[in-house]
Amino acid sequence: MPLVRIDLPDSLTALQARAAADAVHAALVAVFQVPAHDRFQVIQRHPPGGLVVAPSFLGVTHTESVVLVQISCAPGRRVGVKEALYAQVAQGVAAAAGVRPEDVIVNLLETVRENWSFGNGVAHYAVADRQPA
Amino acid sequence: MPLVRIDLPDSLTALQARAAADAVHAALVAVFQVPAHDRFQVIQRHPPGGLVVAPSFLGVTHTESVVLVQISCAPGRRVGVKEALYAQVAQGVAAAAGVRPEDVIVNLLETVRENWSFGNGVAHYAVADRQPA
Amino acid sequence: MPLVRIDLPDSLTALQARAAADAVHAALVAVFQVPAHDRFQVIQRHPPGGLVVAPSFLGVTHTESVVLVQISCAPGRRVGVKEALYAQVAQGVAAAAGVRPEDVIVNLLETVRENWSFGNGVAHYAVADRQPA
Repeated sequence: MPLVRIDLPDSLTALQARAAADAVHAALVAVFQVPAHDRFQVIQRHPPGGLVVAPSFLGVTHTESVVLVQISCAPGRRVGVKEALYAQVAQGVAAAAGVRPEDVIVNLLETVRENWSFGNGVAHYAVADRQPA
Repeated sequence: MPLVRIDLPDSLTALQARAAADAVHAALVAVFQVPAHDRFQVIQRHPPGGLVVAPSFLGVTHTESVVLVQISCAPGRRVGVKEALYAQVAQGVAAAAGVRPEDVIVNLLETVRENWSFGNGVAHYAVADRQPA
Repeated sequence: MPLVRIDLPDSLTALQARAAADAVHAALVAVFQVPAHDRFQVIQRHPPGGLVVAPSFLGVTHTESVVLVQISCAPGRRVGVKEALYAQVAQGVAAAAGVRPEDVIVNLLETVRENWSFGNGVAHYAVADRQPA
């Protein structure tokens, strides 16, 4: 279900961007238990000036090589699970793309299950949720 | 009210992208009863690698010519209305842009009416909702 | 906490885009009382055809030089505060970037505090909210 937007500078190569995207997806599969084939990602590499991030916030320093990860996903996961996701995304993206874990920013937008169609005009989860248990 | 983000590969032409956007808007007007002039769309054509979608999910197959449609809109529409929207978006985009309906993905982000300003710094619906009935 | 997406045409220069982004952030600091260093912005300049906006909606006219501002932020601010933000964003962006205030569109996506990690894999506000008062 997640729709993932990854914004990063074009000083990172397309290969680094893809490695970051792979790491985000691996974290979603491992921690949020998203199906492996439930992958919908938009990766945008920006020229200088396209991303503006303050050099430091809440004690975390940021460089030009920041990776912004915004994930639209189902609601209802517990805080502890979200925290585990952030940790794995930061570690995974840092290791895969060669950036600092401090430079991996994550935000979740929660939206209900009926708000998705994975193709062919079907509200797949709305249909599933109508099935008798 | 909808703010629509359409992400698709640049293997689809600018004309195809525009046709897809027209079809999305027509579906919103027909099914969600959005006013015809309530149109705010961001169309982004991506180079290879910019969109990552698994080849199959929930029995729906996907190709490189996937069209991701994320719609920020008002909350409260019934599930059946959402399902009708997905169906019309998929059929309309497929017909208009020459893609497979299986490759049209739709996601809704619902956000309350007071969260919009359509220009000039006015919260148009917040003002309207304060009017006596 | 806000993650701000600013979409505008590339007929506006990179300097105008940056000035618009500065004005949006200044409004968030002044009206939403966002910390000055809580700045995470994605600025996207689009070629012709990338933005589609109807020429008029709710009595507000729009030109090709439209600036779409979508702000993911914490929930719970009062309507009056949101209205003050829209006013300041429209005035500030218009003055800074040389566009019409009518052409500044704002949308808020509210998402809870635990849905953010500002780097290093930490859910900063979830941690803060667990501290004894």
